[in-house]
Amino acid sequence: MRVYLDNNATTKIDPIVKVKMQPFFEELYGNPNSLHKYGMEVRPHLNEALGSMYDSLHAADEDDIIITSCATESNNAVLKGIFFKYILSNPEKNHIVTTSVEHPSVIDTLMFLSGHGVDVTYVDVDHEGGISANAMKAAVTDKTVLISMMWANNETGMIFPVDEVGAFAKEKGILFHSDAVQAIGKVPVNLSKTDVDYLTFSAHKFHGPKGIGGLYVKKGKALPNLFHGGEQMGGKRAGTLNVAYIVGMGLAMKQAVGHVEKMNSDVRRLRDKLEDAIAKIPDTIVVGPREKRTPNTLLVSLRGIEGESMLWDLNKAGIAASTGSACASESLEANPVMSAIGEDPELAHTAMRLSLSRFTTEAEIEYTIEVFTKAVERLRSISSTYAYTNEVA
Amino acid sequence: MRVYLDNNATTKIDPIVKVKMQPFFEELYGNPNSLHKYGMEVRPHLNEALGSMYDSLHAADEDDIIITSCATESNNAVLKGIFFKYILSNPEKNHIVTTSVEHPSVIDTLMFLSGHGVDVTYVDVDHEGGISANAMKAAVTDKTVLISMMWANNETGMIFPVDEVGAFAKEKGILFHSDAVQAIGKVPVNLSKTDVDYLTFSAHKFHGPKGIGGLYVKKGKALPNLFHGGEQMGGKRAGTLNVAYIVGMGLAMKQAVGHVEKMNSDVRRLRDKLEDAIAKIPDTIVVGPREKRTPNTLLVSLRGIEGESMLWDLNKAGIAASTGSACASESLEANPVMSAIGEDPELAHTAMRLSLSRFTTEAEIEYTIEVFTKAVERLRSISSTYAYTNEVA
Repeated sequence: MRVYLDNNATTKIDPIVKVKMQPFFEELYGNPNSLHKYGMEVRPHLNEALGSMYDSLHAADEDDIIITSCATESNNAVLKGIFFKYILSNPEKNHIVTTSVEHPSVIDTLMFLSGHGVDVTYVDVDHEGGISANAMKAAVTDKTVLISMMWANNETGMIFPVDEVGAFAKEKGILFHSDAVQAIGKVPVNLSKTDVDYLTFSAHKFHGPKGIGGLYVKKGKALPNLFHGGEQMGGKRAGTLNVAYIVGMGLAMKQAVGHVEKMNSDVRRLRDKLEDAIAKIPDTIVVGPREKRTPNTLLVSLRGIEGESMLWDLNKAGIAASTGSACASESLEANPVMSAIGEDPELAHTAMRLSLSRFTTEAEIEYTIEVFTKAVERLRSISSTYAYTNEVA
Repeated sequence: MRVYLDNNATTKIDPIVKVKMQPFFEELYGNPNSLHKYGMEVRPHLNEALGSMYDSLHAADEDDIIITSCATESNNAVLKGIFFKYILSNPEKNHIVTTSVEHPSVIDTLMFLSGHGVDVTYVDVDHEGGISANAMKAAVTDKTVLISMMWANNETGMIFPVDEVGAFAKEKGILFHSDAVQAIGKVPVNLSKTDVDYLTFSAHKFHGPKGIGGLYVKKGKALPNLFHGGEQMGGKRAGTLNVAYIVGMGLAMKQAVGHVEKMNSDVRRLRDKLEDAIAKIPDTIVVGPREKRTPNTLLVSLRGIEGESMLWDLNKAGIAASTGSACASESLEANPVMSAIGEDPELAHTAMRLSLSRFTTEAEIEYTIEVFTKAVERLRSISSTYAYTNEVA
């Protein structure tokens, strides 16, 4: 049996999305900016896809949805756009507030900009892996130009207080960016209700293709382009349009948002079943109360087991899970979320993330429970660390 | 009959490239950075694709080929990377030399950077639409940090003196960037022979998918990332890899480079046949000597005819051609190349570009000659401008 439980890293393409993209790899290959038939015949499909995205996010017609190549591009576009528009010319407004558990595309971009005069405050998560709205507010100064806070965390699934922080930012005249990559299709993301100036999303996290994403920009909040060049996307993001993937993303988002209920009933039930079984294993800690998390995610710390060994045992049995960061698992560094919530650095290495999708089945979860439990037993039986820990206790 | 003669704007996907990409929209959906089977099983395919690109470009193993989402991204990455690495901290090295007929992703990026302290010299084309190596050299000053010159022009197909300018830049210790989007698959691009520090390419110009491109970076010439974030591409371009398109681009480039001979025999013969026929129509000017151009391209000025009307007539007959810029034809501005070579601004609007591919057939060219000739006759018969011009002459 093969079981894919790494859906916060990437997801399989919804089969109907795949079918929808095919004509654009065949006869519908025109450049939509061309004035001839080949160009014109693809435009209605682009319009339909963009319409789906506006509807899915409840974006206003006068706002922009700019198609990008991935969430990393969207996050770089916002932060570097803020740098060029506000900070480079006015060091009196050089402060950005964010969290210590943002995606690397936020953290690393801010680290880079710190070398060019940007002052960043990283707000830590609490012991549950959550972010306190009050802590975010307290970090703001007279120099703050932007708050960047993800909608839901990739590691823990913890949902962050976007409503409260967004309203606060609006009141204070501070720009607000949220990386909603892990939220769309899992919790309602309604931009007519939540005050957000910039919102990042990525198709491959909701069963669309890899290599396409988007950036919502509220009316009047335009930033300098990350990609200068042609007039595509109303002059806001140059580059020939990836028609196939835009069409795919439009349908994938519609499908994902249409399945939010299923995620919060069926998928949540499966996740909870898995979580209950894992929590019964001695010396395990699940991070964050389940009702405060996205319905598909589970991050567990396993005392006395190396993440790598656990991954290996699961992998041998056909189960894909993750340790370390969602998108760059090769690095195998101490899990930043686990460190932030105050776990022992040694324990941090044992953080295992299991993330489900709407395609996950009951049989897959039952199989995973069996394999996971046996793997923990086996690895502890050969672990000097775990034996040592037990003797001390 | 439908005839696609707008291959400098975009191309159809080679059918074998399409087939090659399919598994990555289906079972091979893993994130290559994941440590489990789903991740590991896609890596050999990525390695094969990158290997094809290194071979096709004759890049050295120690150089980088960084996958991007398009040529626009590659060009922005080079120019903004140069800005951050050299210019922002040292205004004594703030000069960039380029040509007045670069792609908008170069021109507009430089215009943007000009607002932040970058000094740019734009070298004009000569009456043939060519660039003189001596003019490029003469534009260099003590402050020059970069020369950016395309390998072949998108409008005219004119091939620019990359060998001479590259060797000169190397000798002077100036960095050299070439946008080779219109060269790959049309003329030999051999990086073991031509001195280039940065080279831009894009899959959809050589029968690969839209939304994927690349940037070659010579060893030791790394620039700050345009995308900061995860460790993908050796930490040089963050963002989850678009596996399907990378695999597609690898094969498409191999195919394109493998067909350079065919381009310079069969396709060149068809282009010349079309050119000869069009040149016979009175009051037409073909820009640039054909032996100095890429073998697939033809830019012609038609006195007394509006580009839009001509496009419309061709389009009604199923023929796709282009006026204005290759990638943003919606704008319909006076063609920059035609203006640069000194044509009357009114005539500039009549510039028509016909660009063939290795899939263009003899029958298509014969049909185009017939339709094109009749369209010119029809439009001139109803053109007040043309009648007026004739009377004056």
